[in-house]
Amino acid sequence: MNSANDPILLTPGPLTTSSRTREAMLRDWGSWDAAFNRMTHSVCAELVNIVHGETDYVCVPLQGSGTFAVEAAIGTLVPRQGCVLVPNNGAYCARLIRILQRMGLAYVELALREDQPVSAAAVEDAFNRDSRISHVALVHLETSAGLLNPLDDIAAVCQRHGRRLIVDAMSSFGALPIDLRQSGIDALISASGKCLEGVPGMGFVIVRRSELEQSEGRSPSLALDLHDQYVYMQKTTQWRFTPPTHVVAALREALDQFMAEGGQPARGARYTRNCATLVSGMKALGFEPFLQAEVQAPVIVTFHAPRDPAWNFAHFYSAVRDEGYVLYPGKLTQVETFRVGCIGAIDADDLRNAVAAIDRTLVRLGIRVR
Amino acid sequence: MNSANDPILLTPGPLTTSSRTREAMLRDWGSWDAAFNRMTHSVCAELVNIVHGETDYVCVPLQGSGTFAVEAAIGTLVPRQGCVLVPNNGAYCARLIRILQRMGLAYVELALREDQPVSAAAVEDAFNRDSRISHVALVHLETSAGLLNPLDDIAAVCQRHGRRLIVDAMSSFGALPIDLRQSGIDALISASGKCLEGVPGMGFVIVRRSELEQSEGRSPSLALDLHDQYVYMQKTTQWRFTPPTHVVAALREALDQFMAEGGQPARGARYTRNCATLVSGMKALGFEPFLQAEVQAPVIVTFHAPRDPAWNFAHFYSAVRDEGYVLYPGKLTQVETFRVGCIGAIDADDLRNAVAAIDRTLVRLGIRVR
Repeated sequence: MNSANDPILLTPGPLTTSSRTREAMLRDWGSWDAAFNRMTHSVCAELVNIVHGETDYVCVPLQGSGTFAVEAAIGTLVPRQGCVLVPNNGAYCARLIRILQRMGLAYVELALREDQPVSAAAVEDAFNRDSRISHVALVHLETSAGLLNPLDDIAAVCQRHGRRLIVDAMSSFGALPIDLRQSGIDALISASGKCLEGVPGMGFVIVRRSELEQSEGRSPSLALDLHDQYVYMQKTTQWRFTPPTHVVAALREALDQFMAEGGQPARGARYTRNCATLVSGMKALGFEPFLQAEVQAPVIVTFHAPRDPAWNFAHFYSAVRDEGYVLYPGKLTQVETFRVGCIGAIDADDLRNAVAAIDRTLVRLGIRVR
Repeated sequence: MNSANDPILLTPGPLTTSSRTREAMLRDWGSWDAAFNRMTHSVCAELVNIVHGETDYVCVPLQGSGTFAVEAAIGTLVPRQGCVLVPNNGAYCARLIRILQRMGLAYVELALREDQPVSAAAVEDAFNRDSRISHVALVHLETSAGLLNPLDDIAAVCQRHGRRLIVDAMSSFGALPIDLRQSGIDALISASGKCLEGVPGMGFVIVRRSELEQSEGRSPSLALDLHDQYVYMQKTTQWRFTPPTHVVAALREALDQFMAEGGQPARGARYTRNCATLVSGMKALGFEPFLQAEVQAPVIVTFHAPRDPAWNFAHFYSAVRDEGYVLYPGKLTQVETFRVGCIGAIDADDLRNAVAAIDRTLVRLGIRVR
């Protein structure tokens, strides 16, 4: 599906985009121009629709990477006297904690292993142990290992206990089903350059309108104030500060392709085929996935590194890149691993070819996997 | 110089870029990839060179719009007990004040008219009146009116009094001469999509290394922490969080064209020709520039709106856009104006043609300027 001779990115964003998406950046847009602002509006409206939030939610786009949008959501939505429960099973959960620490907000860490999804029971226990907890900040799909946390269960327990739920859906939005209609989710964060297959440079927060409207002046940052961004956009149709116009245009084009493909169910099904092709191919080469299959999301797969002393990830990465495929390093703290993404404008054939390239590379470098 | 049939943007960023710059976005880059990280490194090194900061300064790039980089510089470089003097002659100065207010940092406003540059004497007076002042935050080129503030004079007085100087050089960097070698400038902020003629989506701060190294843990924001971004990049060569890869690639290409044109002197000379062509053409139509010629920067020109009751900026904007030129609304608080930019991948012929299009539009809409 990739038209150029460039390597295919098997990484969880930036990822390989379609040539149509990239070609949408061949035009300059004025930020005051009605045509551009209609484009922003249509992007935001469709992002809300993807997760069925039409009735009660609004989408606030934000310049920068996904982490900027995560920090903006925390800073705008959590009151100074709030306390945030963070189930921690990877690097992106740890980043949420760093954000809370910087802001001086109270938090409770629910420590988990990197292969262990959080359970609703553990969250409920935490609520019962600590009545200060006002919010939960959950990473839906922990990209560190590729681990899926049970969003619906956590949303239900938050709703039952009247706690607010902020979800980092960076790597799941568009690929996995998320339904805001009956859920206890208050805010959902993702970015342009992940499963929507746009280019990186813009995050967004889909937030319950009533929650957002109560958050005036709360953000400790002007640039990351979602309320201010929202109010300004409502009033003027424009972004507050210079928007990444080309990134927005690419996302508009990527969303057209997302809809044409059949929306989230079709996107999720393609990624599931990609993932199955990757995992079965890699297993046949002797590689062992780090996660149990039932908690593995079809987005990025972590494999144990071979025990062969000839193994060196940097060399392996470079040799596989020469074959036309860009892998991703591991991000786990205890075991040596590497990662292969299944997302982007790629299909099962690309993954099959990637496995064949990995096979050739192993032979060439004389690495024994088993 | 614009190759497509799109309208030419006479706006101060986003602006019209060259097709070569836009075509640099037709490739996807992995953020872990050495080739991409070499590209980031070369961009940063050249940005420092443009303002002669090789010896003592480093460039820290940041995702987001220019304002994100301004807030990051303030938050990272001003200690909690600091006090910032802000000469205020326009909307971007006022935005600096909003940033300081949000952070809870002390500041002193030096109020000026929107057509009145700040003087070194006024800054020195403020230092003498208020010994708390530790920093000055200066907007070099106030885009609200197009006003040039005397950077060298302010830098000299800051140096003499031992106060730190943070400069928002958003609309001047690359177009006007700035020399860090003998100056009292501690940090200089700009962005990809202004006079360097890249696309929007990335800011950067060129900061005195010794100042930056003293600022660990000071930023109230993780995403906007320049020290953390710098240290991580030094250690890994990578951006901390997902970089806007396509925006960086476009800036790399735009910098090649900047160098090929002859660097800042040539870029400044072209914009000066553009500005002179625009102003003389508009004067011939009867339009009066808002600023005195000696304080007008060759980047964006503010014109008084005609007094004719037939004048309506929205209609005029739309009719001129149909002719292929995108104008910019005024941003002044007291008088009705509109703005025309002279920057981007455009030359004097484009401005001549724009003036002719404005002339035709006035006739068509029956607007009398005088």
